[in-house]
Amino acid sequence: MRATVIYGAGDVRVEEVPDPKLREPTDAVVRVLRSCVCGSDLWPYQSKPDAERADRIGHEFIGVVEEVGSAVSGLAVGDLVVSPFVWADNTCDFCREGLHTSCRNGGFWGAGDVDGCQGEAVRVPQAQGTLVKLPVGVDSALLPSLLTLSDVFPTGHHCAVTAGVSPRTTVTVIGDGAVGLCAVLAARRLGAERIVLMGRHTDRTDIGREFGATDVVAERGKEGVERVRELTGGDGTHAVLECVGTLNALETGFGVVRAGGRVSRVGMPQYREAAVGFGMFVRNVTLTGGVAPARAYIDELLPDVLDGTVEPGRVFDRTIGLSEVPDGYRAMADRTALKVLVRPD
Amino acid sequence: MRATVIYGAGDVRVEEVPDPKLREPTDAVVRVLRSCVCGSDLWPYQSKPDAERADRIGHEFIGVVEEVGSAVSGLAVGDLVVSPFVWADNTCDFCREGLHTSCRNGGFWGAGDVDGCQGEAVRVPQAQGTLVKLPVGVDSALLPSLLTLSDVFPTGHHCAVTAGVSPRTTVTVIGDGAVGLCAVLAARRLGAERIVLMGRHTDRTDIGREFGATDVVAERGKEGVERVRELTGGDGTHAVLECVGTLNALETGFGVVRAGGRVSRVGMPQYREAAVGFGMFVRNVTLTGGVAPARAYIDELLPDVLDGTVEPGRVFDRTIGLSEVPDGYRAMADRTALKVLVRPD
Repeated sequence: MRATVIYGAGDVRVEEVPDPKLREPTDAVVRVLRSCVCGSDLWPYQSKPDAERADRIGHEFIGVVEEVGSAVSGLAVGDLVVSPFVWADNTCDFCREGLHTSCRNGGFWGAGDVDGCQGEAVRVPQAQGTLVKLPVGVDSALLPSLLTLSDVFPTGHHCAVTAGVSPRTTVTVIGDGAVGLCAVLAARRLGAERIVLMGRHTDRTDIGREFGATDVVAERGKEGVERVRELTGGDGTHAVLECVGTLNALETGFGVVRAGGRVSRVGMPQYREAAVGFGMFVRNVTLTGGVAPARAYIDELLPDVLDGTVEPGRVFDRTIGLSEVPDGYRAMADRTALKVLVRPD
Repeated sequence: MRATVIYGAGDVRVEEVPDPKLREPTDAVVRVLRSCVCGSDLWPYQSKPDAERADRIGHEFIGVVEEVGSAVSGLAVGDLVVSPFVWADNTCDFCREGLHTSCRNGGFWGAGDVDGCQGEAVRVPQAQGTLVKLPVGVDSALLPSLLTLSDVFPTGHHCAVTAGVSPRTTVTVIGDGAVGLCAVLAARRLGAERIVLMGRHTDRTDIGREFGATDVVAERGKEGVERVRELTGGDGTHAVLECVGTLNALETGFGVVRAGGRVSRVGMPQYREAAVGFGMFVRNVTLTGGVAPARAYIDELLPDVLDGTVEPGRVFDRTIGLSEVPDGYRAMADRTALKVLVRPD
């Protein structure tokens, strides 16, 4: 079959790879119906050292079950399923606590001998725990929104949940990428009435306003911090949802958070250290968030997607075929596309 | 009157200072019955640059009300009161949320023209919001435990609360100083059944065991982390109460916290930056805590002190007169005393 591989920075290709086969009785094989390119795929796309051996890439997909291992129950050939961006058994103590990203028997797509998901098909380890059946047909108009359940929507939701967003909290969302916009959507869904979105791309912040942002701040750095503080009577907001991952974004977060508030981050940190000393301590600011356990949230978020209460699929602004995936990476890296949906060729 | 002043590192003196007087109608003047030396007083004691003008110092006391401003109600001359280590109006939005350390009309003892508390008497700004009446006599045997309500007991409690300690959480307490021991007591009081205390001084960790510690780890650094992980099946504990303030202690905290857990810190950070990047992110570890809003907790903790359920005053292992305060600092800096109680001469 054909799948996406990455050789190094700027070098993504669609190549022939071995067909996925059942290896463990807990596996399933799923034919990919929709996948997509993630903002976090851009980190290796921009920085991966050149290597002779390429890595598989991609971690978001909807697909149709083709084969099921003998130990998998609840899934049948022909089922339409969505996969979270981390596979997990959904039964260990961490999973039971909702932290599927620390599953004792789970892992990341594309790591070791596990398939990446931007391809024609995928071997799914721990299939019973990982996959969630979708009660729609393969031609459903909801597929884009359902695909966001793989990653960006639950990631935005995790950011909002860990930041303590509720009807009583004011919120700043840092970043107008797909995760940032989903964080706005999630914050609104959790009842926040004042949501300041920090982002510079008006086509994106316009979606953010439709998702629930009440204010948009285009300024960055110190000016951005001042602007958010002006909007909040000098105090900043109770919750800060940092959806970028850079040190600048984190520092902006510390700058706009209200005393006693929480900065939650869900963008992969591009820093090792940060200033978390006296200034944060004396204001009782909490730093939280992390890799989102998407699987923990799908059951909660799915009904709102199915009934149209939320439409996170609006973050997709371009659709391409599998063979065009390299163009999709380029478009997202150049910011000419917000988020790229991938269909079979 | 006489009060403690600090000129520079190692140079604490008891000197004549102006008598406290009412300045604002919201003030009270309180004669100090008991004060004490805090671990955080040792930071300036060890590092303050020499200065011609000395600073007042001390932020914990119990005393008897001598004068009350015209805007103060609920307090009368002769009342025995305890003061939290930050004064606050107890009415602003931050105070109503329980974050008295960010009070819009509050501040720190010894800052600007506000008295320090290791002296004969204190002018108390925002007296009505700050002071809490104690229903005991001036000769009560409970005075030492009641004095810990100024700082170390609510500080340990704040650490446990922000770390999410409950009957379902395992706990590591880092540091066997007075705050660390009070954190053990607070964690036990909140229902934790497994409490690992990291500390090297057996006279102190023995008190920790009586306060509720189930395990003591004397090793530090990497060895200490390994030891705590061994004790917890390799996972670490859900809650980590960092009661020291050094970078080493914080890093130990990150090393012993379970994935999805919280590291709370209440010791004044002696670092500017710390490693809060990918390793913390991928395990969904939260960094929380801060300057404890002691006032917010006194009403909750006071009954347990009054009825003897807890006896945090056991952290005092030396009592001195006011004129001996310089010896008290020396003893605490040398670790020949755990915490020094100060009586009038």
